Amino acid sequence: MTDRGAPAGLLAVDSGGSGLRAALAAVDRGVLAQRASTVPVRTGPRGIDPGHLMEQLVPMVRALTAETGVRELGAAVVGAAGLSTLGDALRAELPDALTREFGVAKVALAADAVTAYVGALGPSPGAVIAAGTGLIAIGTDLTRWRRADGWGHLLGDCGGGAWIGRAGLEAALRAHDGRPGGSARLRDRAEAEFGPLPTLPGRLYPRADRAAVLASFAPGVADCAHLGDPVALDILGAAARQMAESAAAVCPVSGEPRIALTGGLFRMGDPLLLPLEIELAQKLPHAQQVPAEGDPLHGSVRMAADLATDALTLPSDGTMLYLAPKKGISPTGDE
Amino acid sequence: MTDRGAPAGLLAVDSGGSGLRAALAAVDRGVLAQRASTVPVRTGPRGIDPGHLMEQLVPMVRALTAETGVRELGAAVVGAAGLSTLGDALRAELPDALTREFGVAKVALAADAVTAYVGALGPSPGAVIAAGTGLIAIGTDLTRWRRADGWGHLLGDCGGGAWIGRAGLEAALRAHDGRPGGSARLRDRAEAEFGPLPTLPGRLYPRADRAAVLASFAPGVADCAHLGDPVALDILGAAARQMAESAAAVCPVSGEPRIALTGGLFRMGDPLLLPLEIELAQKLPHAQQVPAEGDPLHGSVRMAADLATDALTLPSDGTMLYLAPKKGISPTGDE
Repeated sequence: MTDRGAPAGLLAVDSGGSGLRAALAAVDRGVLAQRASTVPVRTGPRGIDPGHLMEQLVPMVRALTAETGVRELGAAVVGAAGLSTLGDALRAELPDALTREFGVAKVALAADAVTAYVGALGPSPGAVIAAGTGLIAIGTDLTRWRRADGWGHLLGDCGGGAWIGRAGLEAALRAHDGRPGGSARLRDRAEAEFGPLPTLPGRLYPRADRAAVLASFAPGVADCAHLGDPVALDILGAAARQMAESAAAVCPVSGEPRIALTGGLFRMGDPLLLPLEIELAQKLPHAQQVPAEGDPLHGSVRMAADLATDALTLPSDGTMLYLAPKKGISPTGDE
Repeated sequence: MTDRGAPAGLLAVDSGGSGLRAALAAVDRGVLAQRASTVPVRTGPRGIDPGHLMEQLVPMVRALTAETGVRELGAAVVGAAGLSTLGDALRAELPDALTREFGVAKVALAADAVTAYVGALGPSPGAVIAAGTGLIAIGTDLTRWRRADGWGHLLGDCGGGAWIGRAGLEAALRAHDGRPGGSARLRDRAEAEFGPLPTLPGRLYPRADRAAVLASFAPGVADCAHLGDPVALDILGAAARQMAESAAAVCPVSGEPRIALTGGLFRMGDPLLLPLEIELAQKLPHAQQVPAEGDPLHGSVRMAADLATDALTLPSDGTMLYLAPKKGISPTGDE
């Protein structure tokens, strides 16, 4: 296959708290290769830093084009955590930068919740609960996006990993203090993981990744629930209820919406999934629970394929999904 | 009054999150003068930094001795936030430093909860709830100290200012999202104070004083409760219940203990005090609720007076209350 005859490639990017992932795909052949960096894109005074994103992305894309032989990029979709509130600089600069570096004609920027949605359900109506350290619910009737929660570990993310872990540690400390609501099993587990409980504040508060430290105790809560600990079971029951509340706030109220779960938190399995299934059936009886098709990067790939073929029908609102004005420039000047 | 005839002075210090206060007192005349700094003592890798404390304290004490004419210090009591878990360097170095600089013979270091207790109830059995941004309950039967909560805004401080403000902001965001448990009145109040709610995470998370930012919304919750908002009333009711639970965990179970409240949070008044009075009466029917006599600095002064006259009968355990071994050294060599 010559350079000129190579398929128009697609660039899909997923930028989040744990780093940057990039995939090179082809409309008719799916993902050809991918690369990952574990350095999260910096957030500065102007919000998410487009320069730092490009700094990481350029060598990845050079390596991907070399590996795959794909020379032309027809479309690029970048899913980024924090796009809606911290994405001004990204919206202003990233599309031009992608066009300049890689000759991409069509660029879309999406909130990571949108790529999570499309990765899980594709372009169909419904609601997706995305849960890891944090938690957000996103839904669409295909005319607009709705989101609920996703406010971070101090203001919400109710039912997410940091929320569950924090509740478990509070219960451990209640047992330590002799206050009601404590669990001796959670206390013992917390001591096994973090050392003597009086030293826990000194270990937690100085860290920059406090939410991740809290979330690291969520599996401990799941294990205690599995052993029948009533406090741990209550915590996971409350997490499931709050997740379902968030899903209900964004799911279309009519039609035949589908609901899917995505994100690492659901690897916790039955102690969380069983109560969640019941809560969702109660709060959204008209919605069908389905397994997620794929992850957020898969969502970016799907959106890039639709963008390249002018088939992207998802609602774009400038913040959750931003379609950059088309450019006709190519670095090789042959278009 | 000559220098030699001056009364043996007492040095009382209160070191906390909002700075350092020092008072010079006399056993028979009470507080003579005081000074304050708004620079909190640094916490470094070795815990609370004794050098930084002395750096601030020395000029204060020089000014106080000049102002009062008190030349000899018979006893010093330093109440410090974080002493139990972050006080190793303070215990190792501060007593010698105080002796060297000021010729103090008797030195005690106390957790700020202990000075808050003594300031509120004096050396008598009972329980004190100290609440500002954080919350801790401390109690004693005069044979040992017991403490409950005080674990900070991520792990507990249940019912404190940051806890109440955080719950209010979560309710505001629930209303914004259309999730259950929201309050439109709290939403409007939060928007009036912080601007559009989607910008709140960007304003809160980058700050170092996140707990204080959360606590700054506690008066907003109180105002909404005063207007009859049911969600705000529930938040303050839950705060009162948790405070009473912490008090019950530390209060002597027999005898005639007294209970007092201390700290800025209680300026909130009736919306918090009325439910708290009821909760305390239910959970601790044998305890008498009394007004706090004074603040933590007052507690340090009382303890210094008792220490100077060998009348300090409070339980010392090395962490909550540490009595330094006596020194016979005087900088003037005339003892």
